Amino acid sequence: MAKKQKTFRPKPRKPRGFRDRSGAELLAEQEMLRRITAVYASYGFLPQETPAFEYTDALGKFLPDVDRPNQGVFSLQDDDEQWMSLRYDLTAPLARHVAEHYEALPKPFRRYQVGTVWRNEKPGPGRFREFTQCDADSVGAAAPHADAEAIMMLTDAVVAAGVEKKDFAVRISSRKIMSGLLASIGLDTEDGGQSGTVLRAMDKFDRLGAAGVKLLLGEGRKDESGDFTEGAKLSGDQADQVLAFMQAAGADNAKTLDAMAGLIGGSETGLAGIDELRGIAETLEAMGYADQAKIDPSVVRGLDYYTGPVFEAELTFAVTNDKGQEVQFGSIGSGGRYDDLVKRFKGVEVPAVGCSIGVSRLLSALEAKGQGADDTQKLIVVATPDRSRMADYFQIAARLREKFSGHNVAVDIAFGAANLGKQLKYADQRGAAAVIIQGEDERAKGEVTVKDLILGAKLSEEIESNEEWRSGQPAQVSVPEGDLEAAILKTLAFRD
Amino acid sequence: MAKKQKTFRPKPRKPRGFRDRSGAELLAEQEMLRRITAVYASYGFLPQETPAFEYTDALGKFLPDVDRPNQGVFSLQDDDEQWMSLRYDLTAPLARHVAEHYEALPKPFRRYQVGTVWRNEKPGPGRFREFTQCDADSVGAAAPHADAEAIMMLTDAVVAAGVEKKDFAVRISSRKIMSGLLASIGLDTEDGGQSGTVLRAMDKFDRLGAAGVKLLLGEGRKDESGDFTEGAKLSGDQADQVLAFMQAAGADNAKTLDAMAGLIGGSETGLAGIDELRGIAETLEAMGYADQAKIDPSVVRGLDYYTGPVFEAELTFAVTNDKGQEVQFGSIGSGGRYDDLVKRFKGVEVPAVGCSIGVSRLLSALEAKGQGADDTQKLIVVATPDRSRMADYFQIAARLREKFSGHNVAVDIAFGAANLGKQLKYADQRGAAAVIIQGEDERAKGEVTVKDLILGAKLSEEIESNEEWRSGQPAQVSVPEGDLEAAILKTLAFRD
Repeated sequence: MAKKQKTFRPKPRKPRGFRDRSGAELLAEQEMLRRITAVYASYGFLPQETPAFEYTDALGKFLPDVDRPNQGVFSLQDDDEQWMSLRYDLTAPLARHVAEHYEALPKPFRRYQVGTVWRNEKPGPGRFREFTQCDADSVGAAAPHADAEAIMMLTDAVVAAGVEKKDFAVRISSRKIMSGLLASIGLDTEDGGQSGTVLRAMDKFDRLGAAGVKLLLGEGRKDESGDFTEGAKLSGDQADQVLAFMQAAGADNAKTLDAMAGLIGGSETGLAGIDELRGIAETLEAMGYADQAKIDPSVVRGLDYYTGPVFEAELTFAVTNDKGQEVQFGSIGSGGRYDDLVKRFKGVEVPAVGCSIGVSRLLSALEAKGQGADDTQKLIVVATPDRSRMADYFQIAARLREKFSGHNVAVDIAFGAANLGKQLKYADQRGAAAVIIQGEDERAKGEVTVKDLILGAKLSEEIESNEEWRSGQPAQVSVPEGDLEAAILKTLAFRD
Repeated sequence: MAKKQKTFRPKPRKPRGFRDRSGAELLAEQEMLRRITAVYASYGFLPQETPAFEYTDALGKFLPDVDRPNQGVFSLQDDDEQWMSLRYDLTAPLARHVAEHYEALPKPFRRYQVGTVWRNEKPGPGRFREFTQCDADSVGAAAPHADAEAIMMLTDAVVAAGVEKKDFAVRISSRKIMSGLLASIGLDTEDGGQSGTVLRAMDKFDRLGAAGVKLLLGEGRKDESGDFTEGAKLSGDQADQVLAFMQAAGADNAKTLDAMAGLIGGSETGLAGIDELRGIAETLEAMGYADQAKIDPSVVRGLDYYTGPVFEAELTFAVTNDKGQEVQFGSIGSGGRYDDLVKRFKGVEVPAVGCSIGVSRLLSALEAKGQGADDTQKLIVVATPDRSRMADYFQIAARLREKFSGHNVAVDIAFGAANLGKQLKYADQRGAAAVIIQGEDERAKGEVTVKDLILGAKLSEEIESNEEWRSGQPAQVSVPEGDLEAAILKTLAFRD
């Protein structure tokens, strides 16, 4: 009965839209997350972790169809036939958690969460189906104090992540005030249709400017490619009032709020929004955040989600992209109040405000500005020219690890390569800062050689003749065994 | 056409076998992972992240059946009909990664990975379908140096995680030597049947002792509940040789290896295994790890997976469980060589050795021994008795955050509670160490009150009369505003 069968060899490959990450990129992200969450923690926010899966009905927004369960989320049926989905953000699980434990939670319930989320979308260049979110939310406290806290904490976190204060601003507005504006020009804000089109038009102010937005508020706009976007069909007066509102920013928050208040025609909701922002502005002023975080009526954000104050942290410098173009990085963090958080579970409003930082975007921006991680790990490789003396090489490595403990220095041993040439190649491949060599000669003299790979690479570019380079070897030094640490310190210092 | 429909309100609940985690538990785990990965990093291992999903055929071991795709793993079909599964460990994705990029990787490729894994198994008390693994692996270097490195690194990591050296041991054996033993008693090690039964019996030595294992090597064993386990049907002589092997540990590694060598009848594979362990033992001796990491032929581990040296880190103290029973915690980390890592992709052997630490188990063990995290965050709550002075309370909080920055102190503001009584309750609920109060009286005197909640709770247990307690208030102190930090330091110090 023996069947001869060709062994199946699967092709090693990743699912589409997923990626492996490693090394410096991950270390930089981890360090950034550590700094951001340290800020959240210092404000009394506790870390939280929720499952990757939620029941699909509890997740909301997406309800899988049995024939085609994967609309936007990854879903599968558990063995008791219930549909589960991988979370697509960290807010839906927070809503489920709060609804599940509402009575027992301290108010406000302050929590932060760093976690992977999944989107079952068409992958493309730079568009992944799996990424990390970093959120902090405060549930159970009404505006304006919790909102002011969130804005200050977001500001502190962006600074902690390595952005200079001059390089970003937090802009603040309010969904309630926008509702007031729309009501004042006669739109029904409960009917999403025309109001939604107006808000979407307003949201493009940054990109299209007043003229472009005016077209979108009116009949519509044709873009560069010739595509036509239907407008909100406002009258000229209506459109002018919207544009006046968006450009109402004054010399300080108080003046901006006065101007906004004057453009919402006494709407009760709008005036409540103005009061909330006034409370936030007072706290920001008293706490010295007013220069960094300003009220700006051109911020729209989150059309469906937010119910009160909204804010956005934006980088204010331009960076050059791969194609040599100057681009604005735009938003790297945002947040706002969403008092409907648990409404779909409990039928009642629960006050909540949160903020989120786009860690990958922020890392790319700092990288593009040449301000990437400044404390990347330095690697020292111990070569193994004499295989009978492996214990000595292990000992050199252990001694250096201990000596440089806490200084972000790694030490490894090149035992995977057969000879010194290959060991040096290994060190190069790993981007090591230095290689430690103790062959027969050095051993006899009680010395050890430190080869500076960074300086070496630099010099070998500058020196024309290979022979000249080999005879000089300016990037390596032999020192008495006891001076090894000092020699390495010199090497690592050069690298900085 | 308006249909009246009852609003659907989903029940807030988690899928079976999943859990939320937060606060101190998570902080302790994060701190432990930070310490462990710092050790991995100091050995030159780089962090890596792989996707949650792998193609099911690349994941191996599990091949989903279209009717019932979820056997052991969570699987779903992508929109191009390919099956994807959530990773069930971190080794299968490593194998895929190495096979995908083998030529470009430095050898050895040293990487560590901390990540969530999923098992589609029947959940039960303490059995979750989602948990964290923490692995370090070195691919591309043969025994014994990479194995010695892994064992020393595992030892260092367990120490860094907070276990005292006297409280754990690493025990080392070898699958090759076990193969030699089985060959020497006439078993065919390629045929998993009888050999497998012998290895499974040997693996129970810790729990059943020599007598129990002898039954399992022979006809079989009936356990306390009356269930009968079929034995390996070895002859008395064969069983005796296996038991002699398992008890061959001598006064030191050299003596143990000599004894093991004498019991494997000259098997070539077995002797190769002895040589490898000898090389490992030499390095451990030279590096001062020989007391902590010992060769012990009673270690079996990983029946299918490992191909050479295997090792296990075990806690050597007993802890008392919830039911008041003394229990051995057993293994909290393990590892070994698995040279078949990428064989299913490439058809060739690639040397690899790795180790893994069971972080949740280790945390529980330290907790049970009363050695849980010693540097948990301390929370200070600023009360808000006078709502017209919120800016002052924000300022007190910011000042304390700055003062205690880097000391794992969090400061929050009780703005979610309407009056001082509720604010104190909030602080209690959050487990705060202290509450800062500045009401009208204090304000008039330029003072601020520090209420020590930990001391307060302790004293209120001791003091019988409630009146006596109230009149004394020994757990709170009012100090001049400028002395606030000093007063808090005193409070926090008391808590340690």
